Amino acid sequence: MKHQELIFTNDVTSNIDALIEKYNPSKVFVLVDENTNKMVLPQLVAQSMAVANASVITIKVGDINKNIESLMHIWSSLVEGGATRKSMLINLGGGVVTDIGGFAGASFKRGIRFVNIPTTLLSAVDAAVGGKTGINFNGYKNEIGAFCEAEVVIISTRYFSTLSSEELLSGYAEMLKHGLISNAEIYNRLLARDVANIDADSLLQLLQESVMVKKRIVEEDPTEKGIRRALNLGHTAGHAFESLALQRKSPIPHGYAVAWGLVVELVLSHMQLQFPSNELTRLATYIYDNYGAFNVTCDDYPALIEFMRHDKKNDSANEINFTMLKQVGDIHIDCVASEEDIKTALDIYRDFMHI
Amino acid sequence: MKHQELIFTNDVTSNIDALIEKYNPSKVFVLVDENTNKMVLPQLVAQSMAVANASVITIKVGDINKNIESLMHIWSSLVEGGATRKSMLINLGGGVVTDIGGFAGASFKRGIRFVNIPTTLLSAVDAAVGGKTGINFNGYKNEIGAFCEAEVVIISTRYFSTLSSEELLSGYAEMLKHGLISNAEIYNRLLARDVANIDADSLLQLLQESVMVKKRIVEEDPTEKGIRRALNLGHTAGHAFESLALQRKSPIPHGYAVAWGLVVELVLSHMQLQFPSNELTRLATYIYDNYGAFNVTCDDYPALIEFMRHDKKNDSANEINFTMLKQVGDIHIDCVASEEDIKTALDIYRDFMHI
Repeated sequence: MKHQELIFTNDVTSNIDALIEKYNPSKVFVLVDENTNKMVLPQLVAQSMAVANASVITIKVGDINKNIESLMHIWSSLVEGGATRKSMLINLGGGVVTDIGGFAGASFKRGIRFVNIPTTLLSAVDAAVGGKTGINFNGYKNEIGAFCEAEVVIISTRYFSTLSSEELLSGYAEMLKHGLISNAEIYNRLLARDVANIDADSLLQLLQESVMVKKRIVEEDPTEKGIRRALNLGHTAGHAFESLALQRKSPIPHGYAVAWGLVVELVLSHMQLQFPSNELTRLATYIYDNYGAFNVTCDDYPALIEFMRHDKKNDSANEINFTMLKQVGDIHIDCVASEEDIKTALDIYRDFMHI
Repeated sequence: MKHQELIFTNDVTSNIDALIEKYNPSKVFVLVDENTNKMVLPQLVAQSMAVANASVITIKVGDINKNIESLMHIWSSLVEGGATRKSMLINLGGGVVTDIGGFAGASFKRGIRFVNIPTTLLSAVDAAVGGKTGINFNGYKNEIGAFCEAEVVIISTRYFSTLSSEELLSGYAEMLKHGLISNAEIYNRLLARDVANIDADSLLQLLQESVMVKKRIVEEDPTEKGIRRALNLGHTAGHAFESLALQRKSPIPHGYAVAWGLVVELVLSHMQLQFPSNELTRLATYIYDNYGAFNVTCDDYPALIEFMRHDKKNDSANEINFTMLKQVGDIHIDCVASEEDIKTALDIYRDFMHI
């Protein structure tokens, strides 16, 4: 897999113009959803002739539209717009746009160049980087797709000013995860910050440090045979919380689920690998103070464990797999926890969350 | 891209069993079309427990069914059959099956292992090897797909006994092409043979030599940025003949079109690069003796040139691109020919074909 270039900037348009000059595509296409079409695209169009002259492809908002119908709409629009192997696709949006646009780019004529411009903190720190592209299919998330990195990812905080504090916190949880799997220095810098009151330049700096953690891991293991599983920290329990919330018909933001999942999985890390208790308490306090609590009772445990068992990260249906830490930055992948240990960890999670 | 393993054998089932033992897939799926389901699968089922226990996915016969509907049928069958990241897909058939099955394997859960077992000479020498997978879309051939090689290709001549001489000749044309772009020794061995009267073991030996030519080129340039274009020899003119035949509503086999295309493009090679005239005459005679002639008149020239101009191998719509030879094995990619030269080459082609 080729390695992708990351550009951290608050001047997106000059970087787009420079890219288009460098690659000289036969034609430029911009993929947006209905939101970025209204809120972000006009700014780029006003400042860049190349974007103003591009063909715009629009999809509907939301994960529910990350499906085969939207993908076929993108493919057809590329055909009808006269796209060739030398055309370029710019994906301008959150995780849905970069995931589906990435797969469209990876599969059109067996692959054309695509560029991601994430417009949310969550997609900047996660979906837009690392080459996991795809769509949901037959009720399963990301069931169809490809490992294919964007040629370039242009990361800017300038579009985040319109994000709600919930959206900012959602992205910040993935940054905390990157801190935990890198080193104490990066991690401490994140915990010292109040994400609700952070200026765009400081955020860009923290974001750059955080994305580089992911980039290094992805380069080492692009198709998740090993160390890339470090990025799953917090996600086995987090996905279970997300699924339970969906079942309750009151969905929670992905990043919040990851934040609470981090607490559960660091409790497990403490139980199995002696992750330091003072660090555990510090994280749990930060999460509770900033994210509040996701409410679970003992009655929810069987459902949560069932969700964890069906996580596609498990190699076998009999074992529940976690990424754990012995220390901040000391990663142990493919750790198995028993149901009893998971129940104990959920008990301790509830203590931390004052439930 | 990983490099694929090629197995040349007349004992297919033990090789499948060994592969399944080696990779220990969570589940095995076999993709067939209606023909291979009837003609080939029962032989494998009778001899291999692993194949007998596999889930069978069937698609309709023919290039017209290499489409998104068949692809979605394969994806759904994988979901419903409980396929995981550790499952294996065996593509048993001609080029349609290995092309669409390869893309299904490349895209299901961002890629599962797949094995190709080509059942025609043409797919053994061409489609099944080298990682070009995909489907037709919106009326364009192979518009959607991926570069993704099969884990293993098992190549056997045992299924060719039921092929018509037309099907054998169609595959043999691609072998001649591989001879022309490799060296005089390999090429001469092919020209010395009468494909209509060749035993299975000799054919397997020639086939192995021929497939290895392709494999080496693909390894050097998997995504066709450069030298892989050597494999396009005969295909710019060949595709134009194919398209013209389709327009006339009397389609010709792909390999026949390539055979006639080789004559046209070696005439161009002679005109531009002094490819030796005695070699040109030898090839044209072999083609005429074995494949007959594809009939064109001067009135067809504008249509043929228009087809060549729209070939997706051209980087620009203004130039018509060819792979040419200075000698057997001395490859020049990205050669441009003028309309006048192409017309002259078609005139000489007609002389060789006694038209």
